[in-house]
Amino acid sequence: MTKRKTKVSGHRPGKAAQKNGPGSPESPGPRRRDSSQRARDGRHSGGRGGGLWLYGVHPVLAALANPRRRIDRLLLSPEAAQTWGQRLRQERDPRHERLSPETLDRRGIEAFLPEGAVHQGLAARAAPLEQPAIEDIAATPLAATKAETDAEAPPARRVILLLDQVTDPHNVGAVLRSAAAFGAQAVVALDKGAPEESGTLAKSASGALEVVPYIKVTNLARTLDSLKEAGYWCWGLAGEAGQSLAGSRPAEAVALVLGAEGSGLRRLTRERCDLLVKLPTRAPIQALNISNAAAVALYELLGRD
Amino acid sequence: MTKRKTKVSGHRPGKAAQKNGPGSPESPGPRRRDSSQRARDGRHSGGRGGGLWLYGVHPVLAALANPRRRIDRLLLSPEAAQTWGQRLRQERDPRHERLSPETLDRRGIEAFLPEGAVHQGLAARAAPLEQPAIEDIAATPLAATKAETDAEAPPARRVILLLDQVTDPHNVGAVLRSAAAFGAQAVVALDKGAPEESGTLAKSASGALEVVPYIKVTNLARTLDSLKEAGYWCWGLAGEAGQSLAGSRPAEAVALVLGAEGSGLRRLTRERCDLLVKLPTRAPIQALNISNAAAVALYELLGRD
Repeated sequence: MTKRKTKVSGHRPGKAAQKNGPGSPESPGPRRRDSSQRARDGRHSGGRGGGLWLYGVHPVLAALANPRRRIDRLLLSPEAAQTWGQRLRQERDPRHERLSPETLDRRGIEAFLPEGAVHQGLAARAAPLEQPAIEDIAATPLAATKAETDAEAPPARRVILLLDQVTDPHNVGAVLRSAAAFGAQAVVALDKGAPEESGTLAKSASGALEVVPYIKVTNLARTLDSLKEAGYWCWGLAGEAGQSLAGSRPAEAVALVLGAEGSGLRRLTRERCDLLVKLPTRAPIQALNISNAAAVALYELLGRD
Repeated sequence: MTKRKTKVSGHRPGKAAQKNGPGSPESPGPRRRDSSQRARDGRHSGGRGGGLWLYGVHPVLAALANPRRRIDRLLLSPEAAQTWGQRLRQERDPRHERLSPETLDRRGIEAFLPEGAVHQGLAARAAPLEQPAIEDIAATPLAATKAETDAEAPPARRVILLLDQVTDPHNVGAVLRSAAAFGAQAVVALDKGAPEESGTLAKSASGALEVVPYIKVTNLARTLDSLKEAGYWCWGLAGEAGQSLAGSRPAEAVALVLGAEGSGLRRLTRERCDLLVKLPTRAPIQALNISNAAAVALYELLGRD
């Protein structure tokens, strides 16, 4: 979809949404606008096919707090309205102030969601997020990136996490959650095979999908090249690596690549890495699951300073 | 079930299985033996209700390598027999040498398993593991414990992980996997509410269920008391803690308690803790998911020395 590499100057989180101004939910036409916009500028949105249903307390609260998220329906059970109504009103972005919640019983809400969805009485229909280009993330000063999402000090280094052939939305959601929790700049995945932005992914991300960019690319090796040009060291996490992540020489900017369980990093990806590093796991367990490996690696890189 | 606390001297991993000698699969009566044995000595097995089906490459390979695991059927697809047959023969414990694999196509195997089980052409019917008592784990020298499972040097400290009201088998399985990967001594969960030993849990554990004891107890507060008596410091992981896990004073033996997502540690559990510690997560993400939190905490305690 985006074989050509485009630079959209100044396109950082927050900008895309601001174009439309507050209070313009633009429903019911998110699908058309998104696909035409993607076609125009070659960027990816987090998902295809227009609207998606977000559900559960954290995903819905976080979506309402996100000025970049367009929402056109909000469903609440009477119990959820009582429990979460005040927080919803307090924490929502001014952009979402005119959105009127619809009250439905639990079963009524379930009719809109995949079977078995744990919605806790909250659901919101949203447009996929417009995601920034990875080159723009790499070019954005760290302090500026963090200032837009929270008031804390920026983390000590810049870390972008790249997932090579990770396909399970629960895993990617959990990785996004850890990425947001430790202050990674973005999670990058392959356009082909990686899960779309979805209610399932958002539920596992527990609100983090609204905080950390989830960026799809068509070619991971080329993305690593452009990150190296931008000053990032490319490290691949691999069980057969000679040195541990903790023992590796600190770097100010790291693009950390994680492969799929079992198959690991593909050859082309591996060849792009400046360094292979491992986590100190013990036989006979060869590897952590992918989201746990990501959490531990992000903790080592960002959480211990 | 086990309100009375029993001490079974010398009951360590490996002992229970040795009683029966190699080559005595004792099928089809595991249920009777297990329940009568539990009733006799007040210990828990990892699961109730007799046999369970393990499936997937890692769980089945690990079960066959485990001398403590009783297996009475082994199903293989023709493709899996070709791919894994040699490793199965090489890595299986002598106890399982007389077990003849039955060849079935993928659909034939699926008939024995829960819907959607990712079996990769391998399934084994097994008896639940006899698990040691937590008091015996606490009393076992670290080197002795580790020598039974692998040839590596023992980890620098003793860590037992306790799960307060964690109910999802995928989460518990992933926690077991990290516990085995970093060399924790055991994972303890509440008898009421925590998942039974099952194919789902074993699949998430990816072989770790055969490596690290999964022990159910009826009363977590009482278990913490007995671990304190045995020289363990009880630390609770809690977002509201004043100090970080990394910043806490090192201890040689730690019983680390993790609460359920959302509700956290219960009051009685929290009051038993000598110290509450937190992981350095950033707003607005309040917490990692439970298996990621466990992985990061175990890495901090066991993986960085």
